Amino acid sequence: MLVEVTRGELVESRHRGAAVVVDSADRLVAGWGGVDTPIFPRSAVKPFQAVPLVESGAADAFDVTSRELALACASHGGEAVHVLGVEAWLRRLGLNVEHLVCGPHSPLDPVAAGDLLARGDRPTRLHNNCSGKHAGFLTLARHLGVPADGYGDPGHPIQRRVFGVLAEMTGADAEHAVIAVDGCGVPVMAMSLRELARGFSLLADPDRLPALRSAAVRRVCEAMTSHPLDIGGTGRFDTLVTEAGRGAVLTKCGAEGVACAALLGLGLGIAVKIDDGGKRAAEVALAALMVRFTSPDPRLRQMLATFATREVRDTRGQPVGMLRPAFARPDPRRTLRL
Amino acid sequence: MLVEVTRGELVESRHRGAAVVVDSADRLVAGWGGVDTPIFPRSAVKPFQAVPLVESGAADAFDVTSRELALACASHGGEAVHVLGVEAWLRRLGLNVEHLVCGPHSPLDPVAAGDLLARGDRPTRLHNNCSGKHAGFLTLARHLGVPADGYGDPGHPIQRRVFGVLAEMTGADAEHAVIAVDGCGVPVMAMSLRELARGFSLLADPDRLPALRSAAVRRVCEAMTSHPLDIGGTGRFDTLVTEAGRGAVLTKCGAEGVACAALLGLGLGIAVKIDDGGKRAAEVALAALMVRFTSPDPRLRQMLATFATREVRDTRGQPVGMLRPAFARPDPRRTLRL
Repeated sequence: MLVEVTRGELVESRHRGAAVVVDSADRLVAGWGGVDTPIFPRSAVKPFQAVPLVESGAADAFDVTSRELALACASHGGEAVHVLGVEAWLRRLGLNVEHLVCGPHSPLDPVAAGDLLARGDRPTRLHNNCSGKHAGFLTLARHLGVPADGYGDPGHPIQRRVFGVLAEMTGADAEHAVIAVDGCGVPVMAMSLRELARGFSLLADPDRLPALRSAAVRRVCEAMTSHPLDIGGTGRFDTLVTEAGRGAVLTKCGAEGVACAALLGLGLGIAVKIDDGGKRAAEVALAALMVRFTSPDPRLRQMLATFATREVRDTRGQPVGMLRPAFARPDPRRTLRL
Repeated sequence: MLVEVTRGELVESRHRGAAVVVDSADRLVAGWGGVDTPIFPRSAVKPFQAVPLVESGAADAFDVTSRELALACASHGGEAVHVLGVEAWLRRLGLNVEHLVCGPHSPLDPVAAGDLLARGDRPTRLHNNCSGKHAGFLTLARHLGVPADGYGDPGHPIQRRVFGVLAEMTGADAEHAVIAVDGCGVPVMAMSLRELARGFSLLADPDRLPALRSAAVRRVCEAMTSHPLDIGGTGRFDTLVTEAGRGAVLTKCGAEGVACAALLGLGLGIAVKIDDGGKRAAEVALAALMVRFTSPDPRLRQMLATFATREVRDTRGQPVGMLRPAFARPDPRRTLRL
């Protein structure tokens, strides 16, 4: 068990899952649950999916800004800042919303969703939380001189190049990994939670990477930490925690209960997967682990504390229970040092 | 494990939980997981909370219609039909929205929520999915001549009377049960899943109850099956399944992964609690159990099948996985017959 939800004196609901902390030498620092079981990392791998955009020279060739690079790593809220940012980026490429293969969905940000409804407008593919990632794929395709058509297909050169980076950064076996379709229509490669955390530990310690990769990773991380609003949005976990970290941490959550962090100064990667896919529990578990392993910067710790333990309130706004971490002691077979 | 979510070839997420089927003689028909562990039934007990409204004579004294009785049992979507229905009922009592102690929340029905936003209006307490239950409590208070003030407090005569009915119908020990605060601000009494299912089995076989209770239960059940739109709303599980059952079944779901059914012809009660509180899984598990235990009415089976196994689609609308039951064999220690 990782997280529990109380109401009055009882534990009302329980979230099981796996969690792992690794260092950039690929040593297990702490582990809970099935850290070697394949999972789909979903949007948590967006920082890695953005690496080829920089590494290939595409970002420089197309004047991709640091903000746009942050959008390429984003699960954004579909707020005006995100939608207009991706739209302008596509326009610079001579492309538009029709070139995106992701589907439309209502903005994740409730205010943006309400504004859209209030204007009588429908969401477009630009509102898809992954639209920045797709703009990145299109930029890479343009730079490599490969057809943009079918850029989301698993056999397309873009996705094959992305798989290569994912394999190199995480140690996952791209040749034999299970591939499925992510929510935005592009392939998602299964990997273990430990492999996913390893990737984040290398974001946190890029010196271990070859020079070209290291420079690309630094630029991606700097984009994310410099533009936290662009990687998520108003009130969203990744934005608030990464912003509070002021360059010391970045986090990236994914659908179905995935949440990851790179502790940039410490060379540590953390990955959480909630068995049942619960977002609320993934945020609590990741925040609790970050409190344990990050440096004692008061602002960051304060922000993490607000996510690690949250009140459950009734519709009158009265506190009636708690959402809180409930980690067992780390599995000793999975813990080299603490 | 009760329910799994697949993506491509992998199981991406898993929902554990408990489920139980009992007959009206309180015999266990089938059980999975911790059926004797206390849980909060949340809104699943609304049919029982409505019984004193009828049994006391309050419903007759205040001309409570069958539709209003269905609203008293509802977790409604805050659609116009619900909001206007509760408002008219309160007006007949000489009361208004200010007398409700539940808090406001955005309508559960997405179209109703969008319409509200588009009009620039804010949700009121009438939009609270429990507003009909609260109108029932106020009607009962008026009839019993007790103060309406504080009708949601655990020591108020209304709640004490409701606890008594809950204890009698489910066998739960109201004296020693853990009491907490439900989402709408009124008390919620913990009970085991088996006790909850027992209550539903008695909805399904009211002949076992004393005459006055039996008549009240019949009237509540008839209200729910005659007005399925009023117990939930457009597209909602309880509405669609109860409507498809055409008098043979009723269902009532509650927050944090609770879902219950009364198989009215068969004298069976079913209760499900998903450990992690997942609504999606509660609906799948209950629908799967109902398919197994209901009569082979084609329309009902068709509706249950659409809930028991559902496609997971990406934002383009393409199927990418499944949400489906994954029950282990029933626990033999918890299964008297199958």
